[in-house]
Amino acid sequence: MRELRRDPVVDRWVIISAERAARPIIASSCQQAAPGGFCPFCEGNESSTPKEVYALRDDGSPPNGPGWRLRVVPNKFPALARQGELVISKEGMYDRMSGTGVHEVLIETPKHDLALAALSSGQIADLFRAVRLRFCEFKKDKRIRCAQFFKNHGYIAGASIEHSHSQIIAMPVVSKLLKEELYGAERYFSRENRCVYCDIIDKEISSGVRVILETERFIALAPYASRFAYETLLLPKKHHHRFEDADDGTIVALAEILRELLGRTNLILSHPPYNLMLHTVSFGAGAEDGYYHWHVEFLPIVGRVAGFEWGAGFFINAVPPEEAARRLREA
Amino acid sequence: MRELRRDPVVDRWVIISAERAARPIIASSCQQAAPGGFCPFCEGNESSTPKEVYALRDDGSPPNGPGWRLRVVPNKFPALARQGELVISKEGMYDRMSGTGVHEVLIETPKHDLALAALSSGQIADLFRAVRLRFCEFKKDKRIRCAQFFKNHGYIAGASIEHSHSQIIAMPVVSKLLKEELYGAERYFSRENRCVYCDIIDKEISSGVRVILETERFIALAPYASRFAYETLLLPKKHHHRFEDADDGTIVALAEILRELLGRTNLILSHPPYNLMLHTVSFGAGAEDGYYHWHVEFLPIVGRVAGFEWGAGFFINAVPPEEAARRLREA
Repeated sequence: MRELRRDPVVDRWVIISAERAARPIIASSCQQAAPGGFCPFCEGNESSTPKEVYALRDDGSPPNGPGWRLRVVPNKFPALARQGELVISKEGMYDRMSGTGVHEVLIETPKHDLALAALSSGQIADLFRAVRLRFCEFKKDKRIRCAQFFKNHGYIAGASIEHSHSQIIAMPVVSKLLKEELYGAERYFSRENRCVYCDIIDKEISSGVRVILETERFIALAPYASRFAYETLLLPKKHHHRFEDADDGTIVALAEILRELLGRTNLILSHPPYNLMLHTVSFGAGAEDGYYHWHVEFLPIVGRVAGFEWGAGFFINAVPPEEAARRLREA
Repeated sequence: MRELRRDPVVDRWVIISAERAARPIIASSCQQAAPGGFCPFCEGNESSTPKEVYALRDDGSPPNGPGWRLRVVPNKFPALARQGELVISKEGMYDRMSGTGVHEVLIETPKHDLALAALSSGQIADLFRAVRLRFCEFKKDKRIRCAQFFKNHGYIAGASIEHSHSQIIAMPVVSKLLKEELYGAERYFSRENRCVYCDIIDKEISSGVRVILETERFIALAPYASRFAYETLLLPKKHHHRFEDADDGTIVALAEILRELLGRTNLILSHPPYNLMLHTVSFGAGAEDGYYHWHVEFLPIVGRVAGFEWGAGFFINAVPPEEAARRLREA
């Protein structure tokens, strides 16, 4: 069973995917320590994953064997599956959809013990180039409305396999958070005639207190209304709504600022588990979506989410973003 | 520093409360095991908490000493504080508010080693009666727009102190999730002329597959679009938007079905950590809010929230609600 279902009150889609229950959890609970044992993502174990859909191979080695720097493979226990038509149906008052979509894994390095932060910025740029490539592929599929690139680092952050990897889930509906950001950005644009993210960049550069890092092309900042301690937003300074249009210089600049941010965060917070997410406009959106501004969110995990957050959708943050930014800036 | 800040894109308020960082975490990480040592919530240690605002005392014992069955005290490290005027201000493009509100703790039993599930339904009813009383008190305060009652059981679920307790945070804004539920319920009502929750109850009773428990006054069900495995919704069968109007029979019936649900969940999932949240209409809302239907959400924690959820506001649930309901029904 694999389907999407819509909450009839708050318009939130969820994926019900019983197949996911079968996936192995190869990471120790509570920590990120090495669990030992077999790793399906290590070089030499390529036959343990579904066949690669993309790989970077310097030596011209054949697919699905050793010799790669980065591999993209279908998730063996996908939340959504590519085959079949998109079927939209009703069950009385409820709406549902077939679990149509794509779920891929990007294995960021052949080496088991290298975290993303330990890779060169060139290797991190390769990761984002691969994301760009896959997004361009997914958007050809008319059933796909948006794709979410994300990385879970550490067991607490949701990683089931320790070997450094990230994932893309491409979906037949626009995700709730993206819908909210698109709506909010559009409303701001129609009121102010400017992009809200561009205004945030201007405001933050001029005040400076929440800026963590600034490079020629990027800014890393602690958002004014940070939900979590040390939450960071990575924004390209140049306005653009679509990540997959980013040129190579932008990709390299993103990799460089992310690598620097990861290093500083590891220093200040002793290598915390984290989540990393890309936000970019939905597929098939027209030029009118110029009000949106793609960006990357970085959430180191230093606290726990509790009943207040789940009940109210409200967050309590005990580290003011000005203080988080200062600590990371001075690290 | 204690203030509310609004995200300029998605209209989400957060509480920035540096004072919260000072609170002690008296619970072992990763587990709910007893950490040993001093407990500020145990009988005899009443002087360790701020002075009680309410207590149930059978023996007529004086406040802030032993002899109680249930105590309500201000949180020693409150996310929001009651004193002072509500000040709403702007910081350039950003909106903020003074951190005005109430944050109270309900100590559910004088005994350290009794979980909520181990209390009698009479004691659980006392807890909800206390919540009702506090809500009636908060709504007299014109600065308060809504209150969130919640319980975090276990370290993973966010509990900082092991001794069984729950909390209320009363806020000067309507919480994001409540706003979404009110909006969704109103939209449904204006389209269908019926309460969406009443329709859910009818639909679920007639199909039966997602019903966990049904009593004369309540239904416990696995929501059609459950975000999490074993997520449960407790709904009073009789339509009412406001929890604090509930009569004593309803309170007792809620306590009874919750106790039964906790027992079954503990059996099936081996005493999981969990969050419990009350959803009721915001204060000061008029009769037009008759489209809302108060309810309780119960979220046992069996998985982890990861980048996909944080990035997309989308959830992957590996246990179909029909299966969760069947297991809990048959327990």
